[in-house]
Amino acid sequence: MDPWNEHGVDHLLTALESDPRGLESVYRLLYGQKLGSLVIPNEVRSIAENEDLEIQSYSFPYVIEELRPPRRIRVGAVQNKIVCPPSSPVAEQILALHNRVKSIIDIAGQCSVNILCFQETWAMPFAFCTREKMPWCEFAESAEDGPSICLLKQYAKKYSMVIISPILEREPISNVMWNTAVIINSDGSVLGKTRKNHIPRVGDFNESTYYMESQLGHPVFDTPYGRIAVNICYGRHHPLNWLMYGLNGAEIVFNPSATVDSLSESLWPIEARNAAITNHYFTVAINRVGTESFPREFTSGDGKPAHKEFGHFFGSSYITAPDGVRTPGLSRTRNGLLIAEIDLNACRQVQDHWGFRMTQRLELYAKSLTEYVQKSGNH
Amino acid sequence: MDPWNEHGVDHLLTALESDPRGLESVYRLLYGQKLGSLVIPNEVRSIAENEDLEIQSYSFPYVIEELRPPRRIRVGAVQNKIVCPPSSPVAEQILALHNRVKSIIDIAGQCSVNILCFQETWAMPFAFCTREKMPWCEFAESAEDGPSICLLKQYAKKYSMVIISPILEREPISNVMWNTAVIINSDGSVLGKTRKNHIPRVGDFNESTYYMESQLGHPVFDTPYGRIAVNICYGRHHPLNWLMYGLNGAEIVFNPSATVDSLSESLWPIEARNAAITNHYFTVAINRVGTESFPREFTSGDGKPAHKEFGHFFGSSYITAPDGVRTPGLSRTRNGLLIAEIDLNACRQVQDHWGFRMTQRLELYAKSLTEYVQKSGNH
Repeated sequence: MDPWNEHGVDHLLTALESDPRGLESVYRLLYGQKLGSLVIPNEVRSIAENEDLEIQSYSFPYVIEELRPPRRIRVGAVQNKIVCPPSSPVAEQILALHNRVKSIIDIAGQCSVNILCFQETWAMPFAFCTREKMPWCEFAESAEDGPSICLLKQYAKKYSMVIISPILEREPISNVMWNTAVIINSDGSVLGKTRKNHIPRVGDFNESTYYMESQLGHPVFDTPYGRIAVNICYGRHHPLNWLMYGLNGAEIVFNPSATVDSLSESLWPIEARNAAITNHYFTVAINRVGTESFPREFTSGDGKPAHKEFGHFFGSSYITAPDGVRTPGLSRTRNGLLIAEIDLNACRQVQDHWGFRMTQRLELYAKSLTEYVQKSGNH
Repeated sequence: MDPWNEHGVDHLLTALESDPRGLESVYRLLYGQKLGSLVIPNEVRSIAENEDLEIQSYSFPYVIEELRPPRRIRVGAVQNKIVCPPSSPVAEQILALHNRVKSIIDIAGQCSVNILCFQETWAMPFAFCTREKMPWCEFAESAEDGPSICLLKQYAKKYSMVIISPILEREPISNVMWNTAVIINSDGSVLGKTRKNHIPRVGDFNESTYYMESQLGHPVFDTPYGRIAVNICYGRHHPLNWLMYGLNGAEIVFNPSATVDSLSESLWPIEARNAAITNHYFTVAINRVGTESFPREFTSGDGKPAHKEFGHFFGSSYITAPDGVRTPGLSRTRNGLLIAEIDLNACRQVQDHWGFRMTQRLELYAKSLTEYVQKSGNH
């Protein structure tokens, strides 16, 4: 009996000790299938190497229809470490991150990326664990014309690229802060913004010290390269959040995140992939990468002594197609750019095949949830 | 640089070719952690061997609280092949399956299993692909006193075991059929029944030829061993279905299924595990096993020639805890009994830690879904 046939993916647990075969079985069972790669020009590869930037690229298979032309686009996901230590002057930290991101966009542009998304609050360290207001609130910026938005507008126009920029937003009239993703269109204008719908209260992640739940709902943005939405970080644990983006028409949902290995690493491959499957759309799961050390000690609500490190942001960003096939992940430790060529027609094709939308009985659940909320108050 | 640290689970893709190390990393990244096993008496092991029944057993770690005593129970999941070919007389097929299941329950009883669940419509071949009404409708039985229910009542009482019996039900007054799971309590009485909420219309699985969507909602059954619910087969693709069982108080949700490798194998490890994580309960994913060949040819809506085989039911049943830690799966090809010792207190502990229930904003989604349904009609 072929052990791969008998045990499937579990066979790899013994195969690693004794049976170095079956790579194809592992790909099939773990990721759906092995994907082909894209041609990345050699000069781009060597620029990336000089920047110590990992590039991974994949091409999802696609099916030609008779009436609709394919809608093949390239999606890019960026994970990057902070550049200066968080004890550096704020302006220095911002400038260094801007410079890092500029060279990554140049590389993405030369790889013909059409939609690029960065990690959660990419223009600052993930300092919310400290619960200190200063200097971290100084990183907040306007979603219309903050420094990073102004920078990205230029680059979006230069490469005709849609850029999703997750920032710490400060609304300039009210001075209230939000965890926001700004969608910059391929002509360099701000197409709109969306905010984090679910705010964690777990360990180092009680971000409600700084910002509250979004009141903007579940907007979907119509770009030249498809209908996109952004589910920020902890919202990936909430299937209803993923669902509403799908019902509102999203073909790709980005999930810019910041999460550490001790908290969530074994959950990471599950949630965004499940969302792609159940909602018949593509998901792009992006995690922060690196270890960030803060100038003053803080506690984490876990009974352990005060410390200055957050833990390791494990990167591992990946992309999933509506049929559940996924790319491998970027590195756990390095800056990286993940590029996938996808055909947006796959969303409807998979929906026609599996029929989860047709069979999901929304009227039943709208009623059940309404009754539940009325009956149980603030459950 | 340690390649396991840099690449995580993706490293196993290369490790299988060149680096047979890192088993612990694979367990951690793939399943959350490596679980300990239970002591299974030697005489039970040899009985199981004679029956060609695989036994896997695991013990999930648990945390002692100060006020609540632990609620440790043993859950069992059974996957079994049909015994006689589907061309045999109906009564013969049923009898052979009953005998097979009796010996499996005896083994489970000697392993102190408290709640045992079988695969979807375990007392018949999964003949719905044929779209023939005869003889398959003859397998349908009453959920109160059908032959398999009467058998299991005796065994439930004998071992003080809660038994979940997924059957093809025929309601005796209306003569209507349903895809049903009967919950037989540990005293041998029928505690209640629940029915399949979502009926597939995909390839060989258009079961609406035989039965329609349940109108019984999302019942949760209060047993001496915890509050349980049953999400039958295709319902695992529907997060709202999983959600309602959780809101109604389930601590364990069983997912008796019948699905084949070409359709869903790479989705199988994702969906029931995601449900456990997001709803803070245990899930028990059970798949039929074996290849079933039918007497008359049928087509599968995939443009391929008529054929008599359904494809391979790949077993791989597994159990997931609320923190996402899961057992390995049973075999892809053999009959099997999977036993896990769990502490139901883990549900609330994980909920307190992660807080998905507290942060899920149900009032927002009840409103959004209601508006969506009103606006878009029968989407």
